[in-house]
Amino acid sequence: MKATAGTIDLGEFEFENGESIPSLEVAYETYGEFEGDNAVLVCHALTGSAHVANRRLTDGESPVTGGQARAWWDDIVGPGKAVDTKEYYVVCTNVPGSCYGTTGPSSENPETGEPYGTDFPPVTVTDWTRAQREVLNELGVGRLHAVVGGSVGGMNVLEWGKLYPDDVRRLVPVATAARLDPQCLAIDAIARRSIMTDPNWNGGDYYGVSAEGGGSSDDSDGGEHPDHGLALARQLGHVMYLSKASMEQKFGRRAAGRDAAQDVFPSDPAAGFFPYRDVESYLDYQADKFVDRFDANSYLYLTRAMDNYDLAGGYDSDAAALAAFEGEALVISFTGDWHFTSEQSESLADAFREASVPVAHHVIDSDHGHDAFLVEPENVGPPVADFLSDGVEGRAVTDTAEDEDEGSDFAPVHTSLFS
Amino acid sequence: MKATAGTIDLGEFEFENGESIPSLEVAYETYGEFEGDNAVLVCHALTGSAHVANRRLTDGESPVTGGQARAWWDDIVGPGKAVDTKEYYVVCTNVPGSCYGTTGPSSENPETGEPYGTDFPPVTVTDWTRAQREVLNELGVGRLHAVVGGSVGGMNVLEWGKLYPDDVRRLVPVATAARLDPQCLAIDAIARRSIMTDPNWNGGDYYGVSAEGGGSSDDSDGGEHPDHGLALARQLGHVMYLSKASMEQKFGRRAAGRDAAQDVFPSDPAAGFFPYRDVESYLDYQADKFVDRFDANSYLYLTRAMDNYDLAGGYDSDAAALAAFEGEALVISFTGDWHFTSEQSESLADAFREASVPVAHHVIDSDHGHDAFLVEPENVGPPVADFLSDGVEGRAVTDTAEDEDEGSDFAPVHTSLFS
Repeated sequence: MKATAGTIDLGEFEFENGESIPSLEVAYETYGEFEGDNAVLVCHALTGSAHVANRRLTDGESPVTGGQARAWWDDIVGPGKAVDTKEYYVVCTNVPGSCYGTTGPSSENPETGEPYGTDFPPVTVTDWTRAQREVLNELGVGRLHAVVGGSVGGMNVLEWGKLYPDDVRRLVPVATAARLDPQCLAIDAIARRSIMTDPNWNGGDYYGVSAEGGGSSDDSDGGEHPDHGLALARQLGHVMYLSKASMEQKFGRRAAGRDAAQDVFPSDPAAGFFPYRDVESYLDYQADKFVDRFDANSYLYLTRAMDNYDLAGGYDSDAAALAAFEGEALVISFTGDWHFTSEQSESLADAFREASVPVAHHVIDSDHGHDAFLVEPENVGPPVADFLSDGVEGRAVTDTAEDEDEGSDFAPVHTSLFS
Repeated sequence: MKATAGTIDLGEFEFENGESIPSLEVAYETYGEFEGDNAVLVCHALTGSAHVANRRLTDGESPVTGGQARAWWDDIVGPGKAVDTKEYYVVCTNVPGSCYGTTGPSSENPETGEPYGTDFPPVTVTDWTRAQREVLNELGVGRLHAVVGGSVGGMNVLEWGKLYPDDVRRLVPVATAARLDPQCLAIDAIARRSIMTDPNWNGGDYYGVSAEGGGSSDDSDGGEHPDHGLALARQLGHVMYLSKASMEQKFGRRAAGRDAAQDVFPSDPAAGFFPYRDVESYLDYQADKFVDRFDANSYLYLTRAMDNYDLAGGYDSDAAALAAFEGEALVISFTGDWHFTSEQSESLADAFREASVPVAHHVIDSDHGHDAFLVEPENVGPPVADFLSDGVEGRAVTDTAEDEDEGSDFAPVHTSLFS
């Protein structure tokens, strides 16, 4: 498979809030051969990178994955996979404000020689989408066959249909929504507060003497990073990504093994009387890995972009925002996902229907919570593959509207036990 | 209504972990007249106090409510109310480890003259129950007519049935479970981590020169308290106490008014571009109030007691733990509660059934989340009142087992949209 990785400098970039930076560099990767009408843009989730597929570059270029060991959607994107790189030219870019090669708060501000920190302009999903449009222009890609993405990457997909309706044939928003609900807004606000009340956050100025991408927690660069706050934020993320059912299956109330001794942060002596549980060990381990690879300011910026996203923004309704889009859409959701619920996806599908866009809402019955879009490629792959080739009539594509006629057990439940 | 408030010194008290303290003082309040067989013990939730009903003492004694302005279950307990203090002698005690008059981490250790801090022994729901038994002995109360309580107070109710099965006629566990599920264990662990990684926590030693109850955040006593960490913990609590539906109704995605300017903690300049939302304003306001009234170490101790509680502990099953209880039970749950779900209550009711205890599981259809047990007295009161007087045959008492025969819409849903 032909693949490239690199960084494109888009020059001066004006953000939605009106502020500009002199140089926006965007990290990107491509897979497969461009044939004019076979480009598929893949949009990453909150803490993802351009490194969507798991190949090792051998041409001497080093991939800009900021320490992510594994490509984040390797089970879906690749030769012979659902997004088949033998057929499609796949492009993935790291979003502005992130820390995996694209300019963000941890990047050097050329005007000062110091990291931007919180002088970096606020970013929005619209900014991400506009930057992607510019990168594709540089790559010579005009109209896209499809835009595919999950979680906030699914919001990025929707924004393509809203901002560049003529530039894309097929939209695949996965495990996403037209806007976040207040429960998730609350958890994100707590996550940001945990970062900003960490004394090491220091108003966003914690990088020390040298600017660097990523959130390396060692203080060899002279600065202590707000690792405690970022760890809490990440742990809250994991609670949102899992579900009651998946946590019951993965951890139950089991105590962790002796090797998982709790030594990552100070604890009270009384804790010794109680078990250190598998679920705590999992969260502490995940947090520990995360603070080594992600920048705390980027976490603030990207969650604000997600929280602020509203498909209907500037329009009367979600349907009105999608009205100019003349392609087809596949909305995929998971029954056990409480971060982005199947109900929200059904509402999104209704907006497409109202906008006269051929749409299928494919609901996957799953206990895996929000993580399902990453960990159930066997269920996500077939509808994605068939939709990319045949649209909503694709063989493996199902739709809730059809299901209702057939008396399926999916129906939007507005007062469930867990609403 | 006759009412008393005070503190009983139980002398040396040995905790479940084997450690002792020389003097355990327990704050308590009583309402109504004791007539030998009419005593009802009410058990408070995580951050509650003995101040369950809203009367003002006029006899010169100052109530030990640690700054709680309002009694926590005044809508349920009082003259003519569901737990009618004209009929019942109501007793409520503050649990060991708390900070509302009962000895806990913020109390003075007589051996050192300093606050215990984390030298205080770990507490368990069993310890709470044993302390209550001793207080009732001092008050001259032998057998109780009933024990009633919600949330972790409901676990306290269950422990009465397990530890003193002959001492209580009727149990009313409300919005509770035989044990917490791993999702809530995870959130509690994050809350504790937020306190313990606040540098002001200082290993639990933050009280400064003078011991005091409550978590007063001013540093007039010479110590800075871990208010930032405790605030985060409280905010996570509020997310658990509400539901998606109640948050949608209360806040939606609305921006807060200008008056609610976000000034309680440092924030990033980019935040100014995005709305400060009602839901954030609510959480910040609640957290701000809470850190003034609660002690951070107590929060660690009491959440550990809740997380560790397991009705089946020491037995083969929940049913076996309840087998010696010969009274009746009313289990109350709320459909919108994801902290303690209706499914968990149904499982608890099944344990009572298996133990041949006459039981009713009364499910209240509600969008209010876990808070429903506090904010829906019009729905909670009638079954409680009728059960206290007539047991499971009480007029307003319903049971899921009956409902099933009648084709009601409640049935345990094991794969719902939000599981």
